[in-house]
Amino acid sequence: MDYFRESLELHRASRGKIELRSRVPLRDKRDLSLAYTPGVAAACQEIHRDPARVYDYTSRGNLVAIVSDGSAVLGLGNIGPEAALPVMEGKAILFKEFGGVDAFPIVLASQDTEEIIRTVVMLAPSFGGINLEDISAPRCFRIEAALKEKLDIPVFHDDQHGTAIVVYAALINALKIASKRMDSLRVVISGAGAAGIAVARILMDVGVPDIIICDRRGAIYEGRKGDVDNEAKLEMARISNPGKRKGTLTEVLEGADVFIGVSVPGLLTGEAVRRMGARPIIFALANPIPEIDPEEARQAGALVVATGRSDFPNQVNNLLAFPGIFKGAFQARAKKITEGMKQAAGLAIASLVTPPELTPECIIPSPLDRRVAPVVAEAVQKAYQTAEKP
Amino acid sequence: MDYFRESLELHRASRGKIELRSRVPLRDKRDLSLAYTPGVAAACQEIHRDPARVYDYTSRGNLVAIVSDGSAVLGLGNIGPEAALPVMEGKAILFKEFGGVDAFPIVLASQDTEEIIRTVVMLAPSFGGINLEDISAPRCFRIEAALKEKLDIPVFHDDQHGTAIVVYAALINALKIASKRMDSLRVVISGAGAAGIAVARILMDVGVPDIIICDRRGAIYEGRKGDVDNEAKLEMARISNPGKRKGTLTEVLEGADVFIGVSVPGLLTGEAVRRMGARPIIFALANPIPEIDPEEARQAGALVVATGRSDFPNQVNNLLAFPGIFKGAFQARAKKITEGMKQAAGLAIASLVTPPELTPECIIPSPLDRRVAPVVAEAVQKAYQTAEKP
Repeated sequence: MDYFRESLELHRASRGKIELRSRVPLRDKRDLSLAYTPGVAAACQEIHRDPARVYDYTSRGNLVAIVSDGSAVLGLGNIGPEAALPVMEGKAILFKEFGGVDAFPIVLASQDTEEIIRTVVMLAPSFGGINLEDISAPRCFRIEAALKEKLDIPVFHDDQHGTAIVVYAALINALKIASKRMDSLRVVISGAGAAGIAVARILMDVGVPDIIICDRRGAIYEGRKGDVDNEAKLEMARISNPGKRKGTLTEVLEGADVFIGVSVPGLLTGEAVRRMGARPIIFALANPIPEIDPEEARQAGALVVATGRSDFPNQVNNLLAFPGIFKGAFQARAKKITEGMKQAAGLAIASLVTPPELTPECIIPSPLDRRVAPVVAEAVQKAYQTAEKP
Repeated sequence: MDYFRESLELHRASRGKIELRSRVPLRDKRDLSLAYTPGVAAACQEIHRDPARVYDYTSRGNLVAIVSDGSAVLGLGNIGPEAALPVMEGKAILFKEFGGVDAFPIVLASQDTEEIIRTVVMLAPSFGGINLEDISAPRCFRIEAALKEKLDIPVFHDDQHGTAIVVYAALINALKIASKRMDSLRVVISGAGAAGIAVARILMDVGVPDIIICDRRGAIYEGRKGDVDNEAKLEMARISNPGKRKGTLTEVLEGADVFIGVSVPGLLTGEAVRRMGARPIIFALANPIPEIDPEEARQAGALVVATGRSDFPNQVNNLLAFPGIFKGAFQARAKKITEGMKQAAGLAIASLVTPPELTPECIIPSPLDRRVAPVVAEAVQKAYQTAEKP
């Protein structure tokens, strides 16, 4: 794709994509005495008296750290912290552009789980929230869990929850078209990494009764050999696949309502789609090449097809979620991001596409739709405040 | 001072002083594909192949981390990381305004020396340089030394070297007025913290033969009791005070050419100034109240008086140094900030005040003089490149 040469040019010309700016004037001696010494001492002392005031007198309350160790970047894999920086800078400007949230990339010199946890805890006083990014599974689960426990600011692993929220939003609207219900759904998820497991979790939380997760070795079920090293897979084996079905992806897809692929290109055949239940829904989200070509999926009977790509209809893109999630969490001064906030975000995204716009080719808004982040933010803020009410 | 109320208003109204901005457009799908996926993968792969390219394709090469644990903030002391944030944000916007350098505040959740070192090493891949700020002595010496050894990017403790560089610049011009020479000077420094010790070091490096450092207990000399806990003081005892003079500040000031105070208000009496050598030079830099009132010092015979305050002549302010130091280090892509670069910065600052402007009331430029940072940057860049030449 020629995007690559052009993008390289853009990056070289701009020498990076982010800069820091002042939000106050610094023209003369007086400006200096107010923004810096001696005047600044007043804000310091107020915060020293009452640490909560840090949100009134500093930028912390609108500031996210985008933290990555570069271990699972895009489709590129473990390229390390420096090489991950262009992605993190891109993420940062998307936060600002769509959510009005200030975000700063922090790439780390180690991929050791405990060192990463320790470092983020040390940094936390500088930030209002932590967005974990492109950290490989299963380490990402332990890191997120530990940070949620140790910190009293929102911690959000976008590769998990951003994807899960947008998949949930897309599924809500796909079900309207297929006239099916969450509580009678059979879903097969291809991919047991960060995204696959988070998608399974949110769908369980909203009442999907029958979810099977497949990895390279096929369906994950309780008692399967070789999963002892992976806590997340062991937990999924316990709480998913109620029928304890075994077999390959194609085998367990037999009669399923929904396929959700967060795995690898070309994994799904038209033949497998034909063996699914009536009016199947196909989310083939592998990037840049989907698990199945959308056209082939439709010919095999798929009613609704979504991918991760901008050049096909129904792009499932985290950009629909993360700016509004943090914007809303910050508006609410939330100390965490709850399941309720994630579900509210999904519902809010889905709510922006209604008949007659709602069709098999249009189940979610465009990632560039400026209406999304504010609507998501409001829903997220409400969800937190309602839950926190005594 | 009414500055305080006004400054508090400013901070509350702006909700902090820094924000992150995009340096590339994000209007449409195409912009998104270049700044983020899929295009961004090209920059990632280039950097993965050759890590040095991170300086071509990201903002890292112009980005400083302002790192503090809040243990020695202004005159406020150990107020902790959150309360230190307004000062660090102020520093960040000064970096940008005067040096065009992007700077980001990192305040840390611990004041443990080893944890701070470990954390900054973990963060380093995100930044082109580290500015240590408001970290108490003697911990700051160990932290700076360890980071300089572990990192291949510039590490600079501004409370030490920023002050030392500006004092050196001011002294260069004060000596012209007093027609005295560095290599025949007797200097007494009041204060054995970060600033006092760094001032002593730079003055020794430029050939001042007789320097005595005083702390609360008077002159520091080799073999003095009670310094065993403080490596920095022990080293100063070895390399300073060649005459092994003992006694109070007033006693060792007898016959001295220069008094440099980086200590506490009102420590220096007119009587002590009278007992100094001919045409004494007084730098009373304690903030906000100097070691001696400038008027009293002049009446006691001081030829040149400098303070840290903007409402008296000759303000010794780090702002004259740090923006240009990092700007120059970044222009040179320097891996460290050498003694030669610091001395070049001092000479460059001094060079901006020449006769007829050079008078006892004007020995250094105003901190708001926009000529300073570019001139300092060029001198610092040259000094590095000359030293690095094979």
